[in-house]
Amino acid sequence: MTVLDASDDYLIAPLCSGQTLTRLVQGTDHTGAQIDLNVVEEKPLTIYLNGREIVTAMTIGDYPEYLALGFLRNQGMLRDADDILGVDYDAELEVAVVRTASTTTFEDKLAKKTRTSGCAVGTVFGDMMEGLDGMILPATPLRTSDLYTLAAKINTTPSLYLTAGAIHGTVLCQGNRPLVYMEDVGRHNAVDKIAGWMLSEGVDPSDKMLYTTGRLTSEMVIKCALMGIPALASRSGFTAWGVEIAQQVGLTLIGRMRGKRFVCLAGEERLIRDADPDRIADEPRKSGRKGADT
Amino acid sequence: MTVLDASDDYLIAPLCSGQTLTRLVQGTDHTGAQIDLNVVEEKPLTIYLNGREIVTAMTIGDYPEYLALGFLRNQGMLRDADDILGVDYDAELEVAVVRTASTTTFEDKLAKKTRTSGCAVGTVFGDMMEGLDGMILPATPLRTSDLYTLAAKINTTPSLYLTAGAIHGTVLCQGNRPLVYMEDVGRHNAVDKIAGWMLSEGVDPSDKMLYTTGRLTSEMVIKCALMGIPALASRSGFTAWGVEIAQQVGLTLIGRMRGKRFVCLAGEERLIRDADPDRIADEPRKSGRKGADT
Repeated sequence: MTVLDASDDYLIAPLCSGQTLTRLVQGTDHTGAQIDLNVVEEKPLTIYLNGREIVTAMTIGDYPEYLALGFLRNQGMLRDADDILGVDYDAELEVAVVRTASTTTFEDKLAKKTRTSGCAVGTVFGDMMEGLDGMILPATPLRTSDLYTLAAKINTTPSLYLTAGAIHGTVLCQGNRPLVYMEDVGRHNAVDKIAGWMLSEGVDPSDKMLYTTGRLTSEMVIKCALMGIPALASRSGFTAWGVEIAQQVGLTLIGRMRGKRFVCLAGEERLIRDADPDRIADEPRKSGRKGADT
Repeated sequence: MTVLDASDDYLIAPLCSGQTLTRLVQGTDHTGAQIDLNVVEEKPLTIYLNGREIVTAMTIGDYPEYLALGFLRNQGMLRDADDILGVDYDAELEVAVVRTASTTTFEDKLAKKTRTSGCAVGTVFGDMMEGLDGMILPATPLRTSDLYTLAAKINTTPSLYLTAGAIHGTVLCQGNRPLVYMEDVGRHNAVDKIAGWMLSEGVDPSDKMLYTTGRLTSEMVIKCALMGIPALASRSGFTAWGVEIAQQVGLTLIGRMRGKRFVCLAGEERLIRDADPDRIADEPRKSGRKGADT
């Protein structure tokens, strides 16, 4: 269990210093002039659950262990009951192997299923939905003052997005404090890395909020719910099914959050409106954040 | 083979008239006022290749047959040699089954692989890369005047994006004419639906361009190349591997295209700069297009 101190620092901040996560690429601009552009790296990571190859994810390559753990957890392939021995990562082979003390329920199901006609991919979605059956998240209140403070902190945190673009960010928050800021080429990877970190550190999800630059699709809402986090906020928009699931499991869902504006489509009764929107500045035109997927 | 006429109309325009693709959802805004928001629908489609369940995709639900065909084709699970008998779609079961005259190479490989330890998901990426081996796309020139005309037409075409947001668009273009405009909750679905349409209609890819609102990641570049389309343009940014693959297969890659601005990171030698960028208007602030993933 990680003990959260009172400081305002991130426990994990974005790895914006570059390292091996971006590359300078030569090109031309609209005038035909030569330019050097900072472009984000992307590489494959093949995730195994014990002896079984599960998926090849495209990732920026930081925190492969968290990504592997969080992916398997969020897909319902790793359950609470599974005793995780550890994660072996091989940078050269681009492989991460999550090992459990005994064979997982998922492997047993898969072994049965692949003997007939199916495959892992097809089962994934059913397993994710199954995990939501009868779930009601804790009715944690959410202060709009915290929402605004978080958005301002997150949007001004130096990040790979601000350096190179073409990347998604997800931030685990508590009260008005952003704790863990993960970025990746896929918005799901960023969430999965946070799930992996929470699983590794035994973090209590019930007083947390997830902030994402990505859209609030069903998969994103399901992941947040499966992680036990009762609130999800985004700069981007909604899908109808995402909203439906959020309402069903008692998840507070905030979208289209830019400057003073936001829309709440689930959990209005848990919102504490303690901030005056008129005192929140609109986003400057040149905020550097034109959209999530740019 | 579809015969393209000289008219400027889309062969397939976005289905923005709503139908069953959006839903009005009640919520509250930042002031606490009740609002009705138009939100895009999202539902599962389980894709089968003959008797084998391959994947469950989340989609807005238009053109399920094109999505199923295009997905299998773009993942390298359907090859030129495979004789496609047809696609059976069952709206109630949310299932699309692509049938071929005889068992596909992919099914044979899968049958062998699942007997050991692997699964469809893991093999997908390898298969996609394999399809690129030794590939060189036709060196079709791309006029910047066409690029600007296309961007202007596409950005002002009524679409689900402009109605409800939270959706990606991909447009198949020829010269300065946008032909087929597909949208979906996942940017890959939109591309896959175009691939399915091209496969069904036997469309020649060599003089086409693909325009997408999504990022130019490796998967997007690989798909475009596998479809045989020699140019790919986007409002959004790049990943380093996407650029590398484009350079390797001779694909003209244009990104960050907004108003007069764009960046070319592959295929500069095929660009015909016949437009004066200074005569192109900058995007108005309220263009309605804040980014691809909003």
